[in-house]
Amino acid sequence: MPNLFDTTPATPAAERTEPLLTAAGVRLERVLSLGQASPPGFWYDQAEAEWVAVLSGRARLAIAGEAHDRELGPGDAVFLPAGCRHRVAWTDPDQPTVWLALFVDPTLGPALGPAPQERK
Amino acid sequence: MPNLFDTTPATPAAERTEPLLTAAGVRLERVLSLGQASPPGFWYDQAEAEWVAVLSGRARLAIAGEAHDRELGPGDAVFLPAGCRHRVAWTDPDQPTVWLALFVDPTLGPALGPAPQERK
Repeated sequence: MPNLFDTTPATPAAERTEPLLTAAGVRLERVLSLGQASPPGFWYDQAEAEWVAVLSGRARLAIAGEAHDRELGPGDAVFLPAGCRHRVAWTDPDQPTVWLALFVDPTLGPALGPAPQERK
Repeated sequence: MPNLFDTTPATPAAERTEPLLTAAGVRLERVLSLGQASPPGFWYDQAEAEWVAVLSGRARLAIAGEAHDRELGPGDAVFLPAGCRHRVAWTDPDQPTVWLALFVDPTLGPALGPAPQERK
């Protein structure tokens, strides 16, 4: 299994998605970005809940209803409940960004994020 | 949500487990170790499939049937199919080890690891 921090395959030509674990209704992926962002005006509006983290690099994530983009650097993670509209506003064009993303289908019932006592 | 690389809560007194995403049959956790290991002779023998990675620190994972422990450093990940007996042989006592672990219940059907083309 490749090292999670290996950015060798990152390219400005396209994002690269690698499956890490897949089961019915569950998908864990590593994504490598190098300057990619969601198309202008495009919002992810997905039935799946998503937990997404930046392991290395830098990115900005826009979440519908929030005044400012979330600035994400190494170790920053976001829990997106099902139906939470969001878009990748920016990824650093000067260094690869490694994402880890877990998608959970709504058929598994509601997905919960971090325990409240862990929130800051 | 705390930063994944924040090792402040690590303590030699006990491992610390923080839920990151939970749904029926799915559990993503961050675990902080500081010198802990599985008790001598103890093996995890779980019905769940598990994907586990070291984000920072160092650890050794023993997998039943393998001659040598897996040496895990930052970014190293292992896919453990359901029923794959394993134990944590060692974690570094001199620095915190941050683990990320995804558990998938067998009721979701068989869990697959990384795509073959991603294996090394």
